Amino acid sequence: MNGCFPEKGNLMQNLGYYNGRIGTLDELTVPFNDRVHFFGDGVYEATFTRNHKIFALEEHIDRFFRSAAMVDIHIPMEKAEMAALLRDLVNRVDAPEQQVYFQITRGTQPRNHTYPEDMTGNFWVVLKPMAVKDIGMEVGAILREDIRFHQCHIKTLNLLPAVMYSQEAARAGVYEVILYRTPGRSGCGENGGMATRVTECAHSNVHIINGQGEFQTAPLDELILPGIARAHLITACRALGIPVNETPFTVEELMGAKEVLISSSSAPGLRCVEIDGKPVGGQAPEIVAALQKWVRDEIFAATEADR
Amino acid sequence: MNGCFPEKGNLMQNLGYYNGRIGTLDELTVPFNDRVHFFGDGVYEATFTRNHKIFALEEHIDRFFRSAAMVDIHIPMEKAEMAALLRDLVNRVDAPEQQVYFQITRGTQPRNHTYPEDMTGNFWVVLKPMAVKDIGMEVGAILREDIRFHQCHIKTLNLLPAVMYSQEAARAGVYEVILYRTPGRSGCGENGGMATRVTECAHSNVHIINGQGEFQTAPLDELILPGIARAHLITACRALGIPVNETPFTVEELMGAKEVLISSSSAPGLRCVEIDGKPVGGQAPEIVAALQKWVRDEIFAATEADR
Repeated sequence: MNGCFPEKGNLMQNLGYYNGRIGTLDELTVPFNDRVHFFGDGVYEATFTRNHKIFALEEHIDRFFRSAAMVDIHIPMEKAEMAALLRDLVNRVDAPEQQVYFQITRGTQPRNHTYPEDMTGNFWVVLKPMAVKDIGMEVGAILREDIRFHQCHIKTLNLLPAVMYSQEAARAGVYEVILYRTPGRSGCGENGGMATRVTECAHSNVHIINGQGEFQTAPLDELILPGIARAHLITACRALGIPVNETPFTVEELMGAKEVLISSSSAPGLRCVEIDGKPVGGQAPEIVAALQKWVRDEIFAATEADR
Repeated sequence: MNGCFPEKGNLMQNLGYYNGRIGTLDELTVPFNDRVHFFGDGVYEATFTRNHKIFALEEHIDRFFRSAAMVDIHIPMEKAEMAALLRDLVNRVDAPEQQVYFQITRGTQPRNHTYPEDMTGNFWVVLKPMAVKDIGMEVGAILREDIRFHQCHIKTLNLLPAVMYSQEAARAGVYEVILYRTPGRSGCGENGGMATRVTECAHSNVHIINGQGEFQTAPLDELILPGIARAHLITACRALGIPVNETPFTVEELMGAKEVLISSSSAPGLRCVEIDGKPVGGQAPEIVAALQKWVRDEIFAATEADR
């Protein structure tokens, strides 16, 4: 099956795609000289299907093209062509609820830091069954200092810190790691008396309902990913009349917040109820419930089965 | 040739190795689910051969095992076995002067941030012809702020910033990018009046001969790679009676230094004569010449042809 498209009638359990080749994730292989092997040289996106319909696909493709442009990676197709390809591929997989993951790596070349200016990227897709998450689930987190690079707004494959943080969370039996930066930690100075700043999580954004009842979330700078679930939560706030405050908040403000919310595309608004073993939030359940209902309704409406 | 060892008599032009499989770099392929594809989840080493002898192999293997341990990656062989394998492989490649590159990736698994605690790493080798560099060559550099993560002491495959810096250098027509950190750039504060700190380069360490005639180089903390060429230069200084100063230096001290040296395993002591278009160094040629002679002599002695 490696090297050609299978007949559409034979639905697959999972699917890998690499530059036009298709196969199950176990059978597909990729060239040794793909630059991702030596530099993590690529960017990615992840969303999901329900009823074989991809949620928020255009938004993910838009961000994907922005990420690629920021690291000078050339995507060998147009946005509409990519959307059509992804919609075709999800219909080749049996499960109606799938994770939809795609990435572009810079190209294929014997290992060398520099690359030809006209290099064409390699396009990859991963589809596998994944039940749409119950965002009513309540989760715990741990706090760690954010030691990642200063380009977290680009969704790159340089994810080793995210792996290490996630493994720490798993060992602690919690869902996520909430990250904060301290001033002076770029190597020269010490904390000059300024407060910490909460950035995001290992693979999610984090938000609070603050003392004023505002939905407060870190501003979109180079230290956080511009989450699509984050954007949808802000839209929900506007629809529901909840004030939105996009300014940084501290660890202290996090710990004392009325509510703490963690969002990612696959879990777009989980309530965080415990951080480092201490209870947090729980003081504005009606706001959390309203936001979660809005998010759930939007997903369900956008991915309804055809009649 | 993919999947078995070729006869030793047939020398190859280049060689890729993946978990016991061997082939040319063009023909070898790797499994789609290697975690390096999604997270850059691995660490690496690079050195070279002369007369088919690998320079400083034990030091590279020692650092490789340290890097892997720091990110909890499990290498499925002992150090001695790895050394024997690498020595065998370089003899299968025709060119007497080769780049010797090897890496370990965390393992093979459908994409997931977390990993099984007992996961076994995948071992890769890349061998290709590379002439031993003439370290008498004089080079230029540009300065950029160091926005990398705070674990630069681990030689990981999360190298996208190094790629972007290297491409900038190539576009500027220079050899390297010299990186500096400023206080307060971890996301909260601003520069509190403290000076910049020079860390290292995109793929080299950087050192100066300072106003006191000392060989000054950044200390071994989490912001620089503990370069093996750096260690050999320090040994050379001790042998030659040149004082060594392992404390941070600023951009201003760099620009005003008597000499600027850039070192990596493949180019273990190049003189940098221009930074951002301004001439630098050139005021202690006898120290540069003595260090370069020592380094060259050591390499030549360690890689002499058998009689």
